[in-house]
Amino acid sequence: MRLALFNDGRLAIVDGEDLIDVTEHLTTGDPGAAGALHQHIENVARGGAARTEPAGLTGLPRIPLSDAVLEAPLPRPGKIIGAPVNYLDHKAEMEYTTTVADLGVFLKANSSVIGPGQDIVLPYTDKRTDQEGELGVVIGRTAQHVGVDEALDHVFGYTCVLDITVRSGEDRSTRKSFDTFTPIGPWIVTADEIPDPDSLGLRCDVGGTTRQRTNTADLIFGVRELIAYTSSVMTLHPGDVIATGTPAGVGPIGHGDRVVLEIERVGRLEVGVDGSEAVPYTQRPGRRAR
Amino acid sequence: MRLALFNDGRLAIVDGEDLIDVTEHLTTGDPGAAGALHQHIENVARGGAARTEPAGLTGLPRIPLSDAVLEAPLPRPGKIIGAPVNYLDHKAEMEYTTTVADLGVFLKANSSVIGPGQDIVLPYTDKRTDQEGELGVVIGRTAQHVGVDEALDHVFGYTCVLDITVRSGEDRSTRKSFDTFTPIGPWIVTADEIPDPDSLGLRCDVGGTTRQRTNTADLIFGVRELIAYTSSVMTLHPGDVIATGTPAGVGPIGHGDRVVLEIERVGRLEVGVDGSEAVPYTQRPGRRAR
Repeated sequence: MRLALFNDGRLAIVDGEDLIDVTEHLTTGDPGAAGALHQHIENVARGGAARTEPAGLTGLPRIPLSDAVLEAPLPRPGKIIGAPVNYLDHKAEMEYTTTVADLGVFLKANSSVIGPGQDIVLPYTDKRTDQEGELGVVIGRTAQHVGVDEALDHVFGYTCVLDITVRSGEDRSTRKSFDTFTPIGPWIVTADEIPDPDSLGLRCDVGGTTRQRTNTADLIFGVRELIAYTSSVMTLHPGDVIATGTPAGVGPIGHGDRVVLEIERVGRLEVGVDGSEAVPYTQRPGRRAR
Repeated sequence: MRLALFNDGRLAIVDGEDLIDVTEHLTTGDPGAAGALHQHIENVARGGAARTEPAGLTGLPRIPLSDAVLEAPLPRPGKIIGAPVNYLDHKAEMEYTTTVADLGVFLKANSSVIGPGQDIVLPYTDKRTDQEGELGVVIGRTAQHVGVDEALDHVFGYTCVLDITVRSGEDRSTRKSFDTFTPIGPWIVTADEIPDPDSLGLRCDVGGTTRQRTNTADLIFGVRELIAYTSSVMTLHPGDVIATGTPAGVGPIGHGDRVVLEIERVGRLEVGVDGSEAVPYTQRPGRRAR
């Protein structure tokens, strides 16, 4: 099943070329900044989910996908966790000497999320900003010191994540947390549709040219290992997102580019790039010339 | 005014040696994982706060502080932001070659918070885990590209923060995000009581010995500069916490230690240290021997 947000925070099940509006059916009250789908994931975690299979939903409003504006399925996740250097070909292209097994995970600000069709806003005219296309894992059940064999029991579903990154000297959390730097979507595919997340084709295009092409089989820490590792550091809560890392082919994005990330069985996420607010690095507060 | 959480999430104003229970007075409905004080901060940001001065509160329950169990005032902040190398004496003791002006800010997992009287749980028997005592800033109004001169208008208040840190090779977000690694409290002092946050005495004791003693006047990025810098990267939301950085005197904490952080005009935060679950580094999943 594919679950999406659309038209100012309404919750839908994607059924073929239609959305079934399940906002009133699945959620109650004000979902807050985290959004209606986050609230639904928490409901499911508590065992309180209503019936959600399309076949059981009759009499609910249907909207053609082409008439709806899809939004980030999780506009403000509890945590966004990233896996640095989790493909060997990306390690080679960046000439890194370490991998995720040495570096552990990093965090991105949950204020950096945008949805399909929105624009990545470039901060600097004189620092490179790269696309990094990644499989995103959405946590469904609280995970603390979870073993590899039971890790997937804690997954709600999967989505496409772009981990946008400035190439400069700051901590990863700064370089990767600018507002708009985490496009997510176009929806969440529930875990039952993806028995093995470690065998999915992934392709990322910028400006009509394919830059990244991989299969998640090439992850250094696969999805299970990444959940086990992360949950041995920090408790994972329903609605947390893990970006699993990017393969070779990262590169600079520029004003007017379209960035398209397509992951087998998951979906296709497309966003734009807006460079109109970019300024030289040292014009931002506190930056030292280097 | 000092605002605290106590006895399973109830909200209080601290009035001398008493708590005034304002849970029903100031909050509505289920505050969720973020807690009642977070909800109150968001209400204030929307301009919808009820009267909260102790003089205006009559007929509400009063509980002696000595009879109450205080909790983390913000059990799960939206973001926890840290400032690496923001005192020159800490730069010298660690032999770092860069400061916050080069490194920007890092993020800690919001799942790492504990409150007064709780225990920091050490993960490793063979890696050093240090205390870092810091002034914490709690955001009150959304801040995006805020200038230095207007930065303090976006502060709700101040609290004590311990930024507990493993000394190892991983990304800061991993080394600083273990569960229990962010003690916060004992309460939040509202900004009106601290006209200048850049002139506060700070002392941190471990096992009865003073390890850290400084004044926030020695911050490299003062509170205003830190808000300006951070808000030029990521939008700050009400309830976000900025840990302003630690002075010289960081050092290993061990099983049974008491860690006490006292900040002038803010308060005194005391927590314990539990090493009973610590294991060798390579026994945790995914860690490579190094």
